[in-house]
Amino acid sequence: MGISTIIGIAVAAIGIIGGFIIEGGAIMSLFNIPGFMIVVVGTMGATMTAFPLSQTLGIPGSFIRAMTGGSGAEPREMAPSLVDMADKARREGLLSLEEEAQKVEEPFARKGLMLMIDGTDPEALQSILEIDMEQEAARLKEKSEIWKTGSGFSPTLGVLGAVMGLITVLSGLGGDVAALGHGIAVAFVATFYGVGLANVLLLPIHMKLNAIAAEEQQVREMILEGTLSIQAGDNPRIVREKLQGYLAPGNRLPDDEEDDGGAEAAAA
Amino acid sequence: MGISTIIGIAVAAIGIIGGFIIEGGAIMSLFNIPGFMIVVVGTMGATMTAFPLSQTLGIPGSFIRAMTGGSGAEPREMAPSLVDMADKARREGLLSLEEEAQKVEEPFARKGLMLMIDGTDPEALQSILEIDMEQEAARLKEKSEIWKTGSGFSPTLGVLGAVMGLITVLSGLGGDVAALGHGIAVAFVATFYGVGLANVLLLPIHMKLNAIAAEEQQVREMILEGTLSIQAGDNPRIVREKLQGYLAPGNRLPDDEEDDGGAEAAAA
Amino acid sequence: MGISTIIGIAVAAIGIIGGFIIEGGAIMSLFNIPGFMIVVVGTMGATMTAFPLSQTLGIPGSFIRAMTGGSGAEPREMAPSLVDMADKARREGLLSLEEEAQKVEEPFARKGLMLMIDGTDPEALQSILEIDMEQEAARLKEKSEIWKTGSGFSPTLGVLGAVMGLITVLSGLGGDVAALGHGIAVAFVATFYGVGLANVLLLPIHMKLNAIAAEEQQVREMILEGTLSIQAGDNPRIVREKLQGYLAPGNRLPDDEEDDGGAEAAAA
Amino acid sequence: MGISTIIGIAVAAIGIIGGFIIEGGAIMSLFNIPGFMIVVVGTMGATMTAFPLSQTLGIPGSFIRAMTGGSGAEPREMAPSLVDMADKARREGLLSLEEEAQKVEEPFARKGLMLMIDGTDPEALQSILEIDMEQEAARLKEKSEIWKTGSGFSPTLGVLGAVMGLITVLSGLGGDVAALGHGIAVAFVATFYGVGLANVLLLPIHMKLNAIAAEEQQVREMILEGTLSIQAGDNPRIVREKLQGYLAPGNRLPDDEEDDGGAEAAAA
Amino acid sequence: MGISTIIGIAVAAIGIIGGFIIEGGAIMSLFNIPGFMIVVVGTMGATMTAFPLSQTLGIPGSFIRAMTGGSGAEPREMAPSLVDMADKARREGLLSLEEEAQKVEEPFARKGLMLMIDGTDPEALQSILEIDMEQEAARLKEKSEIWKTGSGFSPTLGVLGAVMGLITVLSGLGGDVAALGHGIAVAFVATFYGVGLANVLLLPIHMKLNAIAAEEQQVREMILEGTLSIQAGDNPRIVREKLQGYLAPGNRLPDDEEDDGGAEAAAA
Repeated sequence: MGISTIIGIAVAAIGIIGGFIIEGGAIMSLFNIPGFMIVVVGTMGATMTAFPLSQTLGIPGSFIRAMTGGSGAEPREMAPSLVDMADKARREGLLSLEEEAQKVEEPFARKGLMLMIDGTDPEALQSILEIDMEQEAARLKEKSEIWKTGSGFSPTLGVLGAVMGLITVLSGLGGDVAALGHGIAVAFVATFYGVGLANVLLLPIHMKLNAIAAEEQQVREMILEGTLSIQAGDNPRIVREKLQGYLAPGNRLPDDEEDDGGAEAAAA
Repeated sequence: MGISTIIGIAVAAIGIIGGFIIEGGAIMSLFNIPGFMIVVVGTMGATMTAFPLSQTLGIPGSFIRAMTGGSGAEPREMAPSLVDMADKARREGLLSLEEEAQKVEEPFARKGLMLMIDGTDPEALQSILEIDMEQEAARLKEKSEIWKTGSGFSPTLGVLGAVMGLITVLSGLGGDVAALGHGIAVAFVATFYGVGLANVLLLPIHMKLNAIAAEEQQVREMILEGTLSIQAGDNPRIVREKLQGYLAPGNRLPDDEEDDGGAEAAAA
Repeated sequence: MGISTIIGIAVAAIGIIGGFIIEGGAIMSLFNIPGFMIVVVGTMGATMTAFPLSQTLGIPGSFIRAMTGGSGAEPREMAPSLVDMADKARREGLLSLEEEAQKVEEPFARKGLMLMIDGTDPEALQSILEIDMEQEAARLKEKSEIWKTGSGFSPTLGVLGAVMGLITVLSGLGGDVAALGHGIAVAFVATFYGVGLANVLLLPIHMKLNAIAAEEQQVREMILEGTLSIQAGDNPRIVREKLQGYLAPGNRLPDDEEDDGGAEAAAA
Repeated sequence: MGISTIIGIAVAAIGIIGGFIIEGGAIMSLFNIPGFMIVVVGTMGATMTAFPLSQTLGIPGSFIRAMTGGSGAEPREMAPSLVDMADKARREGLLSLEEEAQKVEEPFARKGLMLMIDGTDPEALQSILEIDMEQEAARLKEKSEIWKTGSGFSPTLGVLGAVMGLITVLSGLGGDVAALGHGIAVAFVATFYGVGLANVLLLPIHMKLNAIAAEEQQVREMILEGTLSIQAGDNPRIVREKLQGYLAPGNRLPDDEEDDGGAEAAAA
Repeated sequence: MGISTIIGIAVAAIGIIGGFIIEGGAIMSLFNIPGFMIVVVGTMGATMTAFPLSQTLGIPGSFIRAMTGGSGAEPREMAPSLVDMADKARREGLLSLEEEAQKVEEPFARKGLMLMIDGTDPEALQSILEIDMEQEAARLKEKSEIWKTGSGFSPTLGVLGAVMGLITVLSGLGGDVAALGHGIAVAFVATFYGVGLANVLLLPIHMKLNAIAAEEQQVREMILEGTLSIQAGDNPRIVREKLQGYLAPGNRLPDDEEDDGGAEAAAA
């Protein structure tokens, strides 16, 4: 998932800067320290004001996360192992899953399975896992929200920078049209920074963080559904049919293996 | 459904380009490689950054889907066959539906009916079908969301392109008003690309994908309602009345056929 | 309800065109075929792309609906007849309502009452009526949504038309300031079309369709509540108190008629 | 609540007009009949189109309501009388409350208490009061929504007026820069009307109506909670603790009076 | 939490003002009394109109709150003391918690625990605490909403101020280009005030207030969950697992202490 983030930013930068060069623009005319300060430092300040310090400190971490993708398990790998556990649990009892559960890497799945094996009451188990899932979703949303907030401040501060530049230019307006044009051009660089920063960096990263979180959340939903289904002693075929829904059509578990005895078994 | 997509894009293009020609505009003045790079390549890059690679790769598929319409079943054809099954199930038992169920082409309906015939517990059946429905809705939403995101980036990058063009033009501002005008005109072409791309292509396709998904989802809801009703052994008249709600008023099943014995039968 | 639609459009047109004439504007300067094509044909095309053909074909029908108002029943007339039926049902049984139910004109109420008299199970009745209500609400929302979509495309295409006009004007910029001014004026006519079309026609009609749908929906909710209450054998006074809530304070049923025996009766 | 509406409008007007005068602007340059017609009459027409006539006719009433504040009861006065009733009901039975209930001025509270005393079934009582509350909330929302709609049309029509003014000015563009400047100034007055009308009058009144409705709704929720709690025979201390939540921390009922026997009594 | 608010505002101000100075702008050109009146006094008036007086009077308090951070308890400190209470309650009964409960500083937790110890019925306890939580959330939302409203009015009034300035400048437009430029510069200062006020002060403070409220709300949810779990006599390990979900992964309670006997105990 991380590759698309880096490629995407590169493609956008090539399109924008490349277009500018072909157009005959001088790259140096896009460098402007005052505009940079107003837009980038201003956006940082406004965003910092809007969030608790802990969120601001989490920005580098979530930037890396957007670049490298989430560390969550793949639904396509998690589903068959849950179905296998349902099968084993039905034949040999829940306690027989202990060894497998301890090998599960996904922390949410391991926690759920261990609690289940420890004999936790189904309602308490559901409650514990749902709290975990909701609170984790809230934390991830906060982490991506800070990027969106920045992407909201950035173009507005770009306009602010342009207005401030125009104030300076127009205050000293004389007969020199060339100087006027140059001054306005410099003022517009702030708009360029504001719009570019928001659209090429901040907003796409916000959305990528949301996409990563949505995938992780979907896996957690699948794990919750599967764990509760195993604990309830559901027929493995039922477990499999439930988990199929979480997989994209081209990515489903094969139907064959259990088809013979399935119709009867499912009637349990 | 596909025809309206193609006709719509054609109508919009004729209106916009035709209006421009009548106005005396030179078509060539709308071609501008730097503007194209900034807007189109920039939008592609920003959108790619914002989504996982799998979503980006799904763009051509969802474009074709918007052009050809969804492959879902028509509610008006599905409703009477579900009512017939309810009738047969009540007279001859659920198992008598096996042959018909296997002939059903809609995969969601076939899955639901087969699980029902296999004797799946009603609660498990509802849970399986609802997971299927919700997860499919989430997948379709994601697929249409990428077009909306692009339609959000596109006009902003059009403004960015215009600003960048203006920076170049104004930096070299001399006494030549004709050159200034021409330069501004070129800068505005980027805005034309950005606004046009968003409004004639990206946003309408996003909305068409949503409309297709909503129709498919509605059929799935009808199938879910019908399947659960058949399994619960509901009177066929009740099943028919429930499914009627999913059909537009001018498109309803005829009332006559069962009206004689209906009042008594419905009291079951 | 229809009168206010026509009057409203007339008032807005008089204000806008009248203001323009008083200002000394020449009406002819607001006519511009290229601008019309870009904005009106462009909006039509984009909207058509965004919706299934069936929705596009429904535009004239929903325009007439906005002009004439909905055909739904008035809550103030429906409420007392439901209370009367509750009274009769309690005294003479549900079957005694058959004749009255067949005379009810509102199709939703007639369907509900007939199913009730036919002895439909309360849960099935509620389920049938709720599906009807929700699906009808979804259909009405779709029909009004297409106008909102058009009102979103229209001003943007107005800007597009202005930008295209400016491209043409500025490309040929010479020393003739009068020609420049005239060209810009023509370009702005597209903006006038886009903003005017959206704000005087498309958006108000979208909102009027929503208002009509909300009123009809409210009547349906009242009918659903009343029918279920009658079927449950609720005391007519309870039915009346429930339905009162759906009527505006100045429009309520009189309290007097049953006040004597009410306190005791309500205790049932 | 009404005072803040009037003061607020006055403060805003003083700030805006005062700033203009200090700046050296001529008040007369803000008067412009064409701009007024386009913006104010146009906004009226568009808003009238968008709503049923009954809503349009309700505008003066809701304007007065925003000026004078709502007529609802104060939560701080309602809470202790509900607690007292809970106490009396527990000691002397529900019927003992009849006299007090008839003296209650808040119509919603009186209706709820009277129905309770009449022996209405708890579920029916809750259903009646909830319908009342939801329908009243919907009516109040509609009444405030019309102001928001107007505040959406108003600035857009201001832009429309400016565009129309510019069309006229630019059509006749000659060499006279002073005339050009004056013409543009007049065109901008329409924008001034549109933005000012929306931000100083329409939007603040919309929000004030919502704030009044929210306060009334909160009192109704408190009354509903209290009435159901009294009917259920809850311990007065429980009733008091529930109602405390509806009061702002600095505005709570004193804790002392029942603190001695409270711990035991609450165990009921 | 307060430090980040002050630092953030300072960083933004340094970026914006510093950038302006480096650009060669004269600080004095950003001072303009008419613009200040139109934007700041106008925003104050419009916001005051939109809210009840009590909300307007609460602005200084919520400003201080944004500067100093909320006074709520830390989840990491609250969690272990709730787990300890669960343990003690299970061993020595609920009444044994009285002393500890009275020492709890968080008023919401103390209220919940005291009611629990007083033997309040679980359903009543949940209802009381939920009302408290929801109403407090509504109050905090209102308090932060007023800042958002101001941040909506402020830039619009900045545009209004610019338009008004342009009206004055253009009305007197003569041949003096330098005077024109200076006049436009002054008009733009209003836009600077409007955009700056909204983005550096009002909107960030709105968001910080929301962030503080969200943290407090999360602690309250944890306390509610914990109190109900203690009252239900849940195994301390279950309580601990539930509360873990509210803590960020790097901030969790250690697993070790109860791991030996945990598996068996949790089976209760």
